[in-house]
Amino acid sequence: MSVTFPRGFRAAGVAAGMKPSGNPDLGLLVADAPCPAAGLFTTNLVQAAPVRLSRERLAASGGRALGVLVNSGQANAATGPQGEHDARVATARAAELLGAGPDDLLACSTGVIGEPLHMERLLDALPGLVSSLSEGGGSAFARAIITTDTLSKEARAEAGHFRVGGCAKGVGMIAPDLATMLVFVTTDAALAPGHLDRLARATLEPRFESLTVDGCRSTNDTVLAFASGGSGEAAEPGTAAWGALEEAFADVGESLLQQLAHDAEGVTHVLLIDVEGAASTEDARLVSRAVAASPLVKTAAFGGDPNPGRILQAVGAAGAEVDPAGVDVWIGDVPVVQGGVIPPGFFETKGAAAREAMQAPDVRIRVRLGGGPGRSRAVGCDLSYEYVRINGEYTT
Amino acid sequence: MSVTFPRGFRAAGVAAGMKPSGNPDLGLLVADAPCPAAGLFTTNLVQAAPVRLSRERLAASGGRALGVLVNSGQANAATGPQGEHDARVATARAAELLGAGPDDLLACSTGVIGEPLHMERLLDALPGLVSSLSEGGGSAFARAIITTDTLSKEARAEAGHFRVGGCAKGVGMIAPDLATMLVFVTTDAALAPGHLDRLARATLEPRFESLTVDGCRSTNDTVLAFASGGSGEAAEPGTAAWGALEEAFADVGESLLQQLAHDAEGVTHVLLIDVEGAASTEDARLVSRAVAASPLVKTAAFGGDPNPGRILQAVGAAGAEVDPAGVDVWIGDVPVVQGGVIPPGFFETKGAAAREAMQAPDVRIRVRLGGGPGRSRAVGCDLSYEYVRINGEYTT
Repeated sequence: MSVTFPRGFRAAGVAAGMKPSGNPDLGLLVADAPCPAAGLFTTNLVQAAPVRLSRERLAASGGRALGVLVNSGQANAATGPQGEHDARVATARAAELLGAGPDDLLACSTGVIGEPLHMERLLDALPGLVSSLSEGGGSAFARAIITTDTLSKEARAEAGHFRVGGCAKGVGMIAPDLATMLVFVTTDAALAPGHLDRLARATLEPRFESLTVDGCRSTNDTVLAFASGGSGEAAEPGTAAWGALEEAFADVGESLLQQLAHDAEGVTHVLLIDVEGAASTEDARLVSRAVAASPLVKTAAFGGDPNPGRILQAVGAAGAEVDPAGVDVWIGDVPVVQGGVIPPGFFETKGAAAREAMQAPDVRIRVRLGGGPGRSRAVGCDLSYEYVRINGEYTT
Repeated sequence: MSVTFPRGFRAAGVAAGMKPSGNPDLGLLVADAPCPAAGLFTTNLVQAAPVRLSRERLAASGGRALGVLVNSGQANAATGPQGEHDARVATARAAELLGAGPDDLLACSTGVIGEPLHMERLLDALPGLVSSLSEGGGSAFARAIITTDTLSKEARAEAGHFRVGGCAKGVGMIAPDLATMLVFVTTDAALAPGHLDRLARATLEPRFESLTVDGCRSTNDTVLAFASGGSGEAAEPGTAAWGALEEAFADVGESLLQQLAHDAEGVTHVLLIDVEGAASTEDARLVSRAVAASPLVKTAAFGGDPNPGRILQAVGAAGAEVDPAGVDVWIGDVPVVQGGVIPPGFFETKGAAAREAMQAPDVRIRVRLGGGPGRSRAVGCDLSYEYVRINGEYTT
């Protein structure tokens, strides 16, 4: 059900022939009427045409939209003016079929960078896509947006009268493509546009920013949230209902985040890196991401080998304010660095206790930098043969 | 010959039992008398005891030293006060055997982080090491400092009366260790200490800073240069002799850099990333390193698959000032991005011409960002199954 679990939304997904595989590759999610919408977008300076278009439309409408048209197969990035034109034409034609205004739909694309959208196939498929929209179409939509994901990713939560639903596609990079993380979250709470944005920034942004598969930022990454108001009830910041809604957004975000991490390309272990005691939140983020993204930490996790020196190396090179003599590190519950020193006993036991923690499906590494207030979590994955195979062996 | 090619140096290398393999693991390089010495050290905040000791001694002596004691097997990093003590005792004992002052020798270590130096074996081996010092000992020294390197790395050059020699150990990370890049360059020119430092910063620093195997900065990286004056002739900045000496330093540095890149862990292709037209040198460096370090570019090189989108992704996320619409990219001589757009013809031919360039042993990628003066080269390598095996499969 995912994005159509909240009332006031319909969705659909069809196979339009955008992907050579013949799998579903065109999805549409719409509210019953234009409604508050919020977006979080990639920080890469190279941005796909649909990213620029969605940004522009949300800015022009003051945070309202009818829904979003999503294709997989081509990323519509590095496609120049033709790519801009294609994104406009595709969304305007879909909106026309819905009886809506030409700027009412947002757009997302994921797939090969540089390859133009297969526009003829896309336009041919639109009437069928629109006619198959339904209140039970969330799962079909979720299936249409994936690329190398092995599973579609859906989540739902309830908060009193309110429902929240979400789906995502992941952090698989299909060569010659890039990972594109697309996340869609819906609610039937009646919200002011600014309030939906606030909710998305508070509950979704920190989660999806914490995820690193290989340190690369896609040209297409997008998180979109929609609030249909279909529950017939409003939520205002500062109320108990708002608090419950925040919690439901966070639950849906956390579920999708964990699904993305566990389906990352070639993953055999998920990394959960918690940093505390940093001078600032920004410092904590630098360190947690540096550890989660380090090829040496990632290969150590693949090998199930506890390796405090590699963690320390990443901490010291993260670019944060760090006093090496004040660093403590745990793998699971096992202390492996104390005051910047690896306990000599570690090598006598060959780190047996830490090894067990390093071989768990979820590897938990905790880094304490000092007594500061900054804390952050990064979620990553190991670096396996399969990652190299997926991204290296494929040739166009 | 390498470091003993210039007159006025002796060197030796022995198997002291520091490494379990029984291979040579203790090296000593000394000038006939304390002479100008210069050092370039890792920027990681977590620094090994020998790095701190060498820095401290060069600062205290105003850039003079007798030589350097190097061990492989243990990195003597994250070893706390015991590590500091061990480095002092080892160098003082070697200096005593040489009839020199206790602070006259510098120190370098490479190997397991956190494991204490095997001091008893090291001290037992010192008399034999000192007695085997010879003017032909450069190659034995070069062999004693390597870890997972498949070959020792030596270079030499002449500049009129002057000789320059060098050796290096590389950018293999031996699990559970880290890569430690150690480089030693000697000359028999008579130089003021400040002038040697200037020579090292001008000719060695840019080269060894351009190398990235996996974006990780070791706790032990060190480049040391010594000038014995053994040629009996001096070189002063601004003279023709100085220019020739600079060129010889650059040649030795470039040779060692290329040897390091071609022996990187699991390497099957070397990446040469040239960036031009950046707003500043710093921006050019950010971009060239981001492309060379990108796991997506590295796996594409492993697969021999030209992939302009992956290169663009790395350019846009590098943190430099970039106008995406002004970016041009070539793989070899083949244009694959023009004005931020991948030419549509690229996908029709499946990038055949670029594919050939991508399958060469040295993959050359050129990125032009605009009309600015900034340029930079980064040297990297691909990401192969073998890299994952070396760093993942090994368990302590």
